[in-house]
Amino acid sequence: MPRKPMLLFADAQYTSPYAMSVFVALTEKRIPFELKTIDLDAGANREGDYATRSLTQRVPTLVDGDFALSESSAITEYLEELRPDPALYPADLKTRARARQVQAWIRSDLLPIRQERSTNVVFYAPTDAPLSAAAQQAAGKLFKAADALLAHGGDHLFGSWTIADVDLAVMLNRLVLNGDDVPAALRAYATRQWERESVQGWVTLQRPPL
Amino acid sequence: MPRKPMLLFADAQYTSPYAMSVFVALTEKRIPFELKTIDLDAGANREGDYATRSLTQRVPTLVDGDFALSESSAITEYLEELRPDPALYPADLKTRARARQVQAWIRSDLLPIRQERSTNVVFYAPTDAPLSAAAQQAAGKLFKAADALLAHGGDHLFGSWTIADVDLAVMLNRLVLNGDDVPAALRAYATRQWERESVQGWVTLQRPPL
Ligand SMILES: [Ca+2]
Ligand SMILES: [Ca+2]
Ligand SMILES: [Ca+2]
Ligand SMILES: [Ca+2]
Repeated sequence: MPRKPMLLFADAQYTSPYAMSVFVALTEKRIPFELKTIDLDAGANREGDYATRSLTQRVPTLVDGDFALSESSAITEYLEELRPDPALYPADLKTRARARQVQAWIRSDLLPIRQERSTNVVFYAPTDAPLSAAAQQAAGKLFKAADALLAHGGDHLFGSWTIADVDLAVMLNRLVLNGDDVPAALRAYATRQWERESVQGWVTLQRPPL
Repeated sequence: MPRKPMLLFADAQYTSPYAMSVFVALTEKRIPFELKTIDLDAGANREGDYATRSLTQRVPTLVDGDFALSESSAITEYLEELRPDPALYPADLKTRARARQVQAWIRSDLLPIRQERSTNVVFYAPTDAPLSAAAQQAAGKLFKAADALLAHGGDHLFGSWTIADVDLAVMLNRLVLNGDDVPAALRAYATRQWERESVQGWVTLQRPPL
């Protein structure tokens, strides 16, 4: 009997960078899945089946048979362990730790960038609102860390592609795709990452009007 | 030649729940380490050696030889892979995924609780400020999820102790130790978790005046 396809729940506008990260992970691993949406604006994540299935009532949620899991980095780790090839994370212990460091950081810091450059500017339309002083400071921190990580001059953070490249590229593209000032090497990195087939699969999804 | 002890950098008041999580992880694994502090209020995390070593300029940072790593969940995963026994994470694939889900959630959601019940109320003194409506809503969400996770009636989230127990217990204790209303079963869970020797090792550190 064929395995039932996994379900990935994303937001109705496909703007969640975390749903995107899981979408890319599933696509890279060639795991068949159905993409479903939850209307966060209507509070559908706090109601009915979804609120029961998703412990944290957030997107994304991955449903694999009778197992449901939320929180994107937990999901990509799960997929990696379930189906190791092709890999989402570096094979070397310390390099893998550094990829997890990037994932955890992107999800818990740089709040002014996430607020003032929501992913609506990435997937819908840019904004003309200038960055606040706090957001400019966060951007400086982002550039410094990304520069250090990419000082080797390669195309990816860690030799070959990893899921951390998606997460860092989205954060940079909140600024790049909005036309904000970003150092050329980082702009080139984010632009290259955006061209990846699995990433384009998410970028080109048909979105409803905002 | 004996291995050089690891260094753990925490905040100067020992109030970071994330530094605490790594402290407990090192203690549980009986890995020798030196505890050092960084004065975040003085901006010492953004200066000198620390800013170079810590990619994200935050605490905790673990230094293992010439390898430095920030972001607590990345650090506990690193320690688990480096020294698997005793385990910080569940052995079963799906249960391990659920432990990571808790860790990721505690670090990225429930912001009103983290703001209105900073860990100063846990490690220094309670506050009389009432919870805002947003914090009450976040508390309701926390209780619902914790209730679901602990519906089995056991002492720990996942059969035996895991690092996710520390993270959830700290979040609950922001309310419990402040005297806010918390359902009895969750209060009992958080109180039991607090008695653990490795946890008490952090709780009883000598703290400077605020
Ligand atoms: Ca909507
Ligand atoms: Ca512009
Ligand atoms: Ca201080
Ligand atoms: Ca009180």
